[in-house]
Formats: sequence, C-alpha cells, structure tokens
Amino acid sequence: MSTVQRSDRESISEMTTERLSVYLRCLESLDETTISSRELADRFHLNAAQIRKDLAHFGEFGIRGVGYNVGRLKEHLIRTLGIDRSRHALIVGAGNLGMALADYKGFNSEGFRVVALIDTDPKKIGQASKGDITIEAPAQLGEIVRRLHVEIGIIAVGPAEAQAVCDTLVEAGICAILNFAPVQMRLRDGVKIKSVDLRINLESLSFFLKNAEDALCDTG
Amino acid sequence: MSTVQRSDRESISEMTTERLSVYLRCLESLDETTISSRELADRFHLNAAQIRKDLAHFGEFGIRGVGYNVGRLKEHLIRTLGIDRSRHALIVGAGNLGMALADYKGFNSEGFRVVALIDTDPKKIGQASKGDITIEAPAQLGEIVRRLHVEIGIIAVGPAEAQAVCDTLVEAGICAILNFAPVQMRLRDGVKIKSVDLRINLESLSFFLKNAEDALCDTG
Repeated sequence: MSTVQRSDRESISEMTTERLSVYLRCLESLDETTISSRELADRFHLNAAQIRKDLAHFGEFGIRGVGYNVGRLKEHLIRTLGIDRSRHALIVGAGNLGMALADYKGFNSEGFRVVALIDTDPKKIGQASKGDITIEAPAQLGEIVRRLHVEIGIIAVGPAEAQAVCDTLVEAGICAILNFAPVQMRLRDGVKIKSVDLRINLESLSFFLKNAEDALCDTG
Repeated sequence: MSTVQRSDRESISEMTTERLSVYLRCLESLDETTISSRELADRFHLNAAQIRKDLAHFGEFGIRGVGYNVGRLKEHLIRTLGIDRSRHALIVGAGNLGMALADYKGFNSEGFRVVALIDTDPKKIGQASKGDITIEAPAQLGEIVRRLHVEIGIIAVGPAEAQAVCDTLVEAGICAILNFAPVQMRLRDGVKIKSVDLRINLESLSFFLKNAEDALCDTG
C-alpha cells in the first residue's frame, strides 16, 4: 500500500514519475527474484540513493541485506503508475507521425491502447492504419471519446492547429494530453498536458560528440 | 569558459544534459536580460537549487542579487551542448516514423539537419520526403556518411532489424545513435546509443489520471 498523502502526490515532479517508468523497464528485464538498489544501479547505470529515495516515497522499502522483491516491486510500480488497467488514447492528426504513433508498440501494450484516429483531410477519412484503426472526421470526436471511454488525447498535428485541437479535446472531456506539436499550450485547471521534445535526445548526443572532440583535442 | 575536467564530463548523467536542454528552452522564451535561478524555477516549475548546481558544474555562476545574464547563459549552454555548429543526421527506415522524423522541425533547425534517408524497400528508393530528401538504398550508406559528414544515425526500423542497422551505422563510422526501435542495443566502446521510449510519456499521464481518480475517491 502506498503511504503517500495527496498533497505529496501532487508535488511529485515529472522527473520522478519518469524514473519510476525507468525502474519498471529495468525490473522487467531481470530474471532475479530479489535485487538491491546497489545492484539495480550498477546494472542499469542509475543512482542507488535516488532509487531508495524514490521507492520509499511510494511506500516501498527494500530489506537490508536482501533488497527488493522484484515481482512485488513491479506490481507496486504498475499500480503506482496507474497502468494496472487499460487506458484508451485517441490520436488527432493522421499524417506520418500520427500513423506511426497509432502502430507504436509502447502505445498498444499493457496499460494503453490507441482506439481512434482523427483527421480533417476528406481523402484520409475512411482509410485505416496498419493496426486497423479507421480515420474519422473531427465532428465524430466527442461521440468517440464517450463511446470508447477515451482518457488520453494525442496531438499529432502541425503547430498552427495544435491549440485548437487541444481545446477541442478538453471540451470533449479529455484531461490528459500528449502533445507532439512544437508549441507551448495554454494551461488549463485539472488538465495535464505533456509535450514531447524529441530534439532533447539529439542535444544529448551532440553533448557526447562535443566532449569526444574536446577529449581528442586535449590528448592530440 | 568551462572549468569542467574531462573525468567529470564523462560522468555527467543523461538527466543532467536533458536539464541543460530544458534550461535552454526556457531561456529562449524569455524577454528579460537577466534572471535569477529562483525566477527561472518559479516561471518554469523547476528547482532553483538544481539549476544553480547544474550551471555551476559547467562553469556558469549567477551574480548574487542580479542572477544570470540571459544572453550569455544561452550562448554558454549552446556551446556546452555542442550545438554551436550544425551536425548532420541520417535516418534508416523510411516508414511513417522515419518520414515524420525527416520533416521534424527540432531535427532541422539550429544545430541539426537530417541530410539522408535510407530504406531497403525498392519501391521507396528514389522517392523523397516533404523536405525533399531522397530515399536511398542501404548500399549507399557508407558513401553518404563520408560525403555528407554524417555524425548521427537515427534508427527508425522495426525491432527485428534494429541491431543490424546499428552495427552498419557503427561500421560506417557513426558514433552517436538515436534508436526508436523498442529493443536494447548491444553497447560498443566509444559509441553513444540513446533509445527513445515514448511510452514513458503516457505512463506519466496515467500517473496523473490515477491520482486524480484517487483524489476523487478520497473526497467523494
């Protein structure tokens, strides 16, 4: 059982929830039945003190000299992240990105399922993704959200249309939005908007390349 | 000037370089000429102590009572991340994801440019992306890397082919790889592989939804 109070829960940063996801991925790749924070840190290049702090925050304490029970910890993380049941997502924008996301494995396995694709282009409406989701018109959005119990809206349109799509999703009752458009969205009370910035990954690679160059200059 | 030693640089975690990218995004959206770590933290929901620690680590210190010079700090972060010059990237896999990434704005603005697309499908070879990058055959990869000075390889193929593509990229001299396939790659000395897991974003939204539900249950 989690011992976290609501006020604590609200202040948990996104970095923390992302680390919980990372711990879950690591645990899923283990064959062991128990693991210590130290072993987990060494194996996956993580920080042992941070692992202990994060897990204790959600009511999970390892046993000194034994570590964590892997199966129990996995279940605990799955419940904490709210992926112990399936949540339905809808994608607005059936361009290359929207179509790629509709078939993305991580969006269609335990915990999540893409159930609808929306696009304004009459030529696209009626066509289907590889996973057989038919593209529908924006007019259908509200009805689809209700009928298919959609909880998550994914914005895969261009920057010019993104805010309008976001507003439509919120009006339809969606309060968790994943945004791929490179624009800052207006915040709304009770609505969580997460924007994905893929460029950060390239900057991290650039940092590595630059340091490799600097190291060569230092020794060369 | 950065005062960081090489051994320090090597041990900098990916979370730190990602925070540098986040700071840069925040600074780019400011009109002010100076800003304190406290103001920056308040404005963008960051942690002031973490900002000071991260920036001091890279040789940037704010002035007490004044803060950081925004322009100078931006330049410093751009240099630190190695994006003060353009780095060329090549995408392997011209499916929906590869085509979306080829046109992705963040991969084609200051610091980065997608210069080539590779696919095995003879029907795709010779076709072009919206941004007018022609899809070429895998046999051309080595020559393209040399001719266009490609530094970053982006893997946008399925999980079954990803490791072979990764090996080909390394053989062609690429030592920074961004992997979108949901597989763990074999590590290689001197090669940095960054895998993107978009599902983490959905898990973060699920965590929000779950806590909103729990809060309703608590008060309901």
